[in-house]
Amino acid sequence: MFQTFDSAGDPSVGKPRVKLLRQWLADNGLDGFLVPRADEHQGEYVADRSARLKWLTGFSGSAGVALVLRDRAFMFVDGRYTLQVRHEIDLDIFAIESLVDNPPAFWIKDNLGKGARLGFDPWLHTINEVKALNVSAEQSGATLVPLDKNPIDIIWKDQPAPPVAPVEIHPIGFAGELAKDKLVRLAAAIAKDGATHAVLTDPSSIAWAFNIRGGDVPHTPLALGFAILAADGKHQLFMDQRKFSRTVAAYLSQLADLHEPGEFEAAVVALAKGGAKIALDPVLAAEKLRILVEDNGGTFVAAPDPARIPRATKNQAEIAGSRAAHRRDGAAVAKLLCWLERQKPGSLDEITVVTKLEETRRQTGEETQMPLRDVSFDTISGAGPNGAIMHYRVSRATNRKLAAGELFLLDSGAQYQDGTTDITRTVPIGQPTEEMRERFTLVLKGMIGISTLCFPAGTRGSEIDAVARMALWKHGCDFAHGTGHGVGSYLAVHEGPQRIARTGTEKLLAGMMLSNEPGYYKEGSYGIRIENLILVTPADQVEGGDIAMHSFETLTLAPIDVRLIRTDLLQREELRWLDAYHARVLAEIGPMLDGETLAWLEKATAPLPHDAKI
Amino acid sequence: MFQTFDSAGDPSVGKPRVKLLRQWLADNGLDGFLVPRADEHQGEYVADRSARLKWLTGFSGSAGVALVLRDRAFMFVDGRYTLQVRHEIDLDIFAIESLVDNPPAFWIKDNLGKGARLGFDPWLHTINEVKALNVSAEQSGATLVPLDKNPIDIIWKDQPAPPVAPVEIHPIGFAGELAKDKLVRLAAAIAKDGATHAVLTDPSSIAWAFNIRGGDVPHTPLALGFAILAADGKHQLFMDQRKFSRTVAAYLSQLADLHEPGEFEAAVVALAKGGAKIALDPVLAAEKLRILVEDNGGTFVAAPDPARIPRATKNQAEIAGSRAAHRRDGAAVAKLLCWLERQKPGSLDEITVVTKLEETRRQTGEETQMPLRDVSFDTISGAGPNGAIMHYRVSRATNRKLAAGELFLLDSGAQYQDGTTDITRTVPIGQPTEEMRERFTLVLKGMIGISTLCFPAGTRGSEIDAVARMALWKHGCDFAHGTGHGVGSYLAVHEGPQRIARTGTEKLLAGMMLSNEPGYYKEGSYGIRIENLILVTPADQVEGGDIAMHSFETLTLAPIDVRLIRTDLLQREELRWLDAYHARVLAEIGPMLDGETLAWLEKATAPLPHDAKI
Repeated sequence: MFQTFDSAGDPSVGKPRVKLLRQWLADNGLDGFLVPRADEHQGEYVADRSARLKWLTGFSGSAGVALVLRDRAFMFVDGRYTLQVRHEIDLDIFAIESLVDNPPAFWIKDNLGKGARLGFDPWLHTINEVKALNVSAEQSGATLVPLDKNPIDIIWKDQPAPPVAPVEIHPIGFAGELAKDKLVRLAAAIAKDGATHAVLTDPSSIAWAFNIRGGDVPHTPLALGFAILAADGKHQLFMDQRKFSRTVAAYLSQLADLHEPGEFEAAVVALAKGGAKIALDPVLAAEKLRILVEDNGGTFVAAPDPARIPRATKNQAEIAGSRAAHRRDGAAVAKLLCWLERQKPGSLDEITVVTKLEETRRQTGEETQMPLRDVSFDTISGAGPNGAIMHYRVSRATNRKLAAGELFLLDSGAQYQDGTTDITRTVPIGQPTEEMRERFTLVLKGMIGISTLCFPAGTRGSEIDAVARMALWKHGCDFAHGTGHGVGSYLAVHEGPQRIARTGTEKLLAGMMLSNEPGYYKEGSYGIRIENLILVTPADQVEGGDIAMHSFETLTLAPIDVRLIRTDLLQREELRWLDAYHARVLAEIGPMLDGETLAWLEKATAPLPHDAKI
Repeated sequence: MFQTFDSAGDPSVGKPRVKLLRQWLADNGLDGFLVPRADEHQGEYVADRSARLKWLTGFSGSAGVALVLRDRAFMFVDGRYTLQVRHEIDLDIFAIESLVDNPPAFWIKDNLGKGARLGFDPWLHTINEVKALNVSAEQSGATLVPLDKNPIDIIWKDQPAPPVAPVEIHPIGFAGELAKDKLVRLAAAIAKDGATHAVLTDPSSIAWAFNIRGGDVPHTPLALGFAILAADGKHQLFMDQRKFSRTVAAYLSQLADLHEPGEFEAAVVALAKGGAKIALDPVLAAEKLRILVEDNGGTFVAAPDPARIPRATKNQAEIAGSRAAHRRDGAAVAKLLCWLERQKPGSLDEITVVTKLEETRRQTGEETQMPLRDVSFDTISGAGPNGAIMHYRVSRATNRKLAAGELFLLDSGAQYQDGTTDITRTVPIGQPTEEMRERFTLVLKGMIGISTLCFPAGTRGSEIDAVARMALWKHGCDFAHGTGHGVGSYLAVHEGPQRIARTGTEKLLAGMMLSNEPGYYKEGSYGIRIENLILVTPADQVEGGDIAMHSFETLTLAPIDVRLIRTDLLQREELRWLDAYHARVLAEIGPMLDGETLAWLEKATAPLPHDAKI
């Protein structure tokens, strides 16, 4: 299995470890220390070695910050984790604060005393984060102290070593562009930003630029490391060379000078001393890098990671790979859904479904000679009220039967070498209520609204987010997450910068992949989410129109459960989209199925009666 | 008439006047000077005295900047004026540049030579504008020189005097809140911003806060002046006292110390010297004020104009007034539309319609004892291809017959004491083409989309702008302006900060009034726009829903021309909205009409056949 069902948190660890940390703070003349969930690369997953927040507090969530003072300690988490955190940390030690309404940068301003000295590890906070923290600290009269060594690393006696998973070359057939050509493009972009160098701190950018994949963190094929790209083409890659086979080392050494991670700091310092203008992405790069550049005579150029937009706009090989991955993945999901429909209500539990889904994915991958490399995130398998917990992770402690009259929400994804998938389907167990069917149909209307949208070049994700919500809004409902996130190509399943959300300030460009996943959540009762991945198509002339328009190609191929659809709430155009989508699902994944699964799929994708009343 | 039909621009003025200006620049050791359209108050209209750009160049548009250098001169205008400007200025003197793609702040960076000294009048540029200009000037090695006296005022021998139109008290029945109570609210807001004082530079804010109206600029009942509001309640108003009757002076002196405009600068300096913390809105306030504050030991607090949001969120009296104004205005527009439909194609021209519309408005105002005070802007009366010019202003030179087979676009508004209106209707002259009807219906779908939208508290205008465009987008069409602007209450017809547009970053709050005006423009052929004013209603529980939702109440009441509607492109819900809207129009304005106008209205608002095919 690519995921476990252990209860992740452990509230007992906090007491002794916080005591050790406080002792260290006292010995070193500090009044407090910030422990973020992040590592040096600011990704969604961290290696075990970097799970300092979990080690110190017991909290296992994917976002959060602990602030440990001499006499008090706080845990800042967002709305996803307010329930979970209460089970995972010692509430006698930590008070819980909102990471959104009162994040450390606010809290410090109002609460940290005059003259207080608050330590932080400048490798673990971005340049912009520290800027905001410093403004607050100044207002409260306190001082932020960047530390040379993270105190957790000092007191954590059995801290794991950094991961050294093997690096593989991502074949050109999947990557679609030679690494050397990508690097030429990036060098030009760096010069255009007015810089001589750019530091890639995001392993996704390194993986994309060098056409490599690794295995250093869960569920995302990343090789942790840093790269310094140069406008003049003299690139340097800093990565533990135990990860390289001889072939990989030979390949990479054609593209860059290879160095051990321990040489990275000195390399930045040397460039800075030589007067280099070094581009760092202020929302991604560690404050430490800015310090190293500016303290050694270099110029810090604030510029977005140059690989960000090229990586987000997929090329034809990546698109073809994704289409193939989605056919394969759709077949696996169809097998699961067919199997699920044949089970008696109450006979299954959430973990069984996760296990079975991984099995159908492995099996389909083997049959098509494109094996399942990993799941792209821990499957969200939520029955009844668990479905209403937006980032639910099933454990043996929370595992729930799929009971009659309830909804079951299944959000999962796969990593194949040709593409990353992410799909959510919601199905009824037994007979759904009329309210469930109405709400499901409203969610579906939003999802179809995005699927059928045309939009001019330059439109931003924030401008179309409402399209997925309008039908829910009219019924006094909404969902408390964005409509869509960017998706990588055999890389991170959550990949920026594009988003369909209030915060989606990036333009939607041809080749960008996104999720389209409106939902509805009734706390304590049920959750609904329908998610397909979509691809921004090149702007194309509309017949009779004035301007070329982008639209979305739907990538995900699996039936949407018609037992939850009230066709009388759909417009004819919406019904037409649904029928056409189902016909395409049957045509594209049908050939990979047979027997009772194919028969089930034919029924599940049959056209619906067009009795639309509106 | 409240508007004229003269050809506004005059290209012959530029040559001699630019020569005078260049002489002055040479005498004063300057290499150039910036001449914006703005006055000290940054409003849409300026008094004749402040029409320096028009005097210097001949250009009559409402936005633009001239940059006069020793040997070259440039006129920066936006897309609205790229055609018009060519007729109004001497192209031998001025090169035309884009105010959007290459504004002065960009141009300077790339073109102004090292060591150049560029003069500007710091009363006419906002703090943020000058900040951007300074950054550019620094990059080019040039210097921006704030001048003590505007050179145009020196060389313009017959420059008009500042206006002194009488100020009247805006009665409490229309204002809905006593000025003294508003001033208490504002004083508290100033303290909350961490300031001791705030300068109101926007005459709309002064008019709102003091419940006064004036007549110093066209079409907007503003009294030009400045106010310094104090957190401790010791307010000062700087306004030419020749504008005050004894009653008005007595009223105002209860609210603030009254001073002549000439004392304003000294008052700011005195406060600054006393250590005041003075709030200035960086997007509204003149750079000169920042200089006066900071050069004299005061603290400049950057904060939005404190009256902005209170003024935008209308109270019950203002809302009741607006509803009454819209009934009256709707009746006047109905009279015009009825009359228009009875004329033979080709028998009318654009100016005749404008004249007739002002007549029906005056007549209806007199009948209802609420006389027309002004038009709220120069009526846009565009026949055929003139309708495709988004900010068309009809003059005798451009006046066009309303010919058979063409569309006619009429965008107009009125100022009544109880409210400001703004309405656009598009009608066919004779038989419209199928393309015109299709495009009109797509525009109507967008307009109904906004009219029927529900949205949660906190939604911003930028998030819903696409709702007005989706139907057009699907047909490869769009319109190149925002969907809606804020509207004042017997104040400016274009009033911030709320907007429905890509740039609409303000939250839509209960009581805000906006326009809802999608359009479609086929250059050289025809223009379509349908515009109603709408009001954000308080968030209300939707039956069966989870959260309270805002929606829009439509204020404008006049028929939408059904000859241009293809009902087969409308959904039943859209048809239902249209029928209900028309029924309301008949019920609310019918009682103000009689005879053939009432008979016409009954026909124009009759329910449509519900043969919807989609």
